[in-house]
Amino acid sequence: MQQLAREWQRAGLRIGLVPTMGYLHEGHMALVKVARARADVVVVSLFVNPTQFGPREDLGRYPRDFDGDARRCRDAGVTALFCPDTGGMYGPDYSTWVVEEALSIPLCGRSRPGHFRGVTTVVTKLFNAVCPSVAVFGQKDGQQAAVIQRLVRDLNFPVEIVVVPTVRESDGLAMSSRNVYLSTSERERARSIPEGLRLAEKAFAAGERRSSELARLVTDRIRAAEGRIDYVEIVARRTFARLEAVDEPAMLAVAAFFGNTRLIDNCFLG
Amino acid sequence: MQQLAREWQRAGLRIGLVPTMGYLHEGHMALVKVARARADVVVVSLFVNPTQFGPREDLGRYPRDFDGDARRCRDAGVTALFCPDTGGMYGPDYSTWVVEEALSIPLCGRSRPGHFRGVTTVVTKLFNAVCPSVAVFGQKDGQQAAVIQRLVRDLNFPVEIVVVPTVRESDGLAMSSRNVYLSTSERERARSIPEGLRLAEKAFAAGERRSSELARLVTDRIRAAEGRIDYVEIVARRTFARLEAVDEPAMLAVAAFFGNTRLIDNCFLG
Repeated sequence: MQQLAREWQRAGLRIGLVPTMGYLHEGHMALVKVARARADVVVVSLFVNPTQFGPREDLGRYPRDFDGDARRCRDAGVTALFCPDTGGMYGPDYSTWVVEEALSIPLCGRSRPGHFRGVTTVVTKLFNAVCPSVAVFGQKDGQQAAVIQRLVRDLNFPVEIVVVPTVRESDGLAMSSRNVYLSTSERERARSIPEGLRLAEKAFAAGERRSSELARLVTDRIRAAEGRIDYVEIVARRTFARLEAVDEPAMLAVAAFFGNTRLIDNCFLG
Repeated sequence: MQQLAREWQRAGLRIGLVPTMGYLHEGHMALVKVARARADVVVVSLFVNPTQFGPREDLGRYPRDFDGDARRCRDAGVTALFCPDTGGMYGPDYSTWVVEEALSIPLCGRSRPGHFRGVTTVVTKLFNAVCPSVAVFGQKDGQQAAVIQRLVRDLNFPVEIVVVPTVRESDGLAMSSRNVYLSTSERERARSIPEGLRLAEKAFAAGERRSSELARLVTDRIRAAEGRIDYVEIVARRTFARLEAVDEPAMLAVAAFFGNTRLIDNCFLG
């Protein structure tokens, strides 16, 4: 991969990277489209990164479909798939980690200890392997996008980060490889997440600024659909500090379980 | 720096990096010479990295001589000096760190908490700023060299690491910018460090394998010169685990104070 990247660089080509864990859906393909528009060659990485899963999480059953992914990428004009194997990425005496210690602390950082350390580490490794000029991430993983932007700024990676708006199903549910886990009933009830976000956006547009009230709209909607809330929080987009009132650009972030499936989503306020 | 690096890469030039904290001596210039032999353009970075100093260490009084450094580099055929300022390297909300959690634990890792986190972080930043094909370090900082080789392996940096043998004064003292701190008497007594190392090498060559005995030769010599031992340890070169007996390639590492000045040195056994 590095040899290929070096050849592309010598030819003056801009490399675009779309890091994924595979099982590609329309959300991923929107990232690919942006990468194609901004780079000369596009690399999609497919790697189910074990270090960003907790010990009781879904690493073992994470959905995979290499043939389908390869076909989608070919059809979308992707130049190369980069599919490293786990042993090559993390040898037996692996010992180096990249940690972000501010934006990665609240929200999913609190619910999933070690998750963002795994993300920042693997993204660093992918950047070094693919040498992209631009890398594209989805806003659905809003905290991840912010953490990666901070990583790039702090460690001076010569990489432009582009964050693409969340792609949604027709009923508003954010596209996610994990949606495949949902039973028919869970899938139906999960639409309460985007419905709750939309209620909060409307209340914000109508002048509500109290975080507690805005969050309550989301929480109530999800609970009415028998979802189990992990968190519903409003944080400053710049610092990810919790806001009592939305008096600066904010993100309303949600994590909730339907059955055993944990879904996340978010919207901007202000 | 990145723009320049990208232009050099497009021109097919190999970039060599010699990271330094300035106050260059013959040891540094030996690194430059190796870099020149292995790369088309050579960048010397001059940056007294605050994050690798402890709160009670010598950051404030670390010696500096920009004009002298620039002249030496010009005379040695260095292509560019990279001298970032501290505020540009670490902004007020800086929050990302690179940590190595095995080789960096013993020896200087124990004596200088946070030191190697500062080193691995700044080296990552310098690699991203300069985009070198090859980076050159000195064996005098033997643990640092090992930690950086691990960093490069684990994070997949497309950088070749070259480690250059320690350059010594005529009486054997390893060259170091910190030698300038030594009084005349301290300077004289400090030669007990390389003398101790040489005694251990001779004993090893004569068949001694017990680490305690080999280390004692060094400790005794330094103490006889009224040096204060920080550590004298024999570790496996592969893992930096402490060895009871030298039955695999090992490093004998020393840190000792003369007055307030902490000096380090090492030699290979086996």
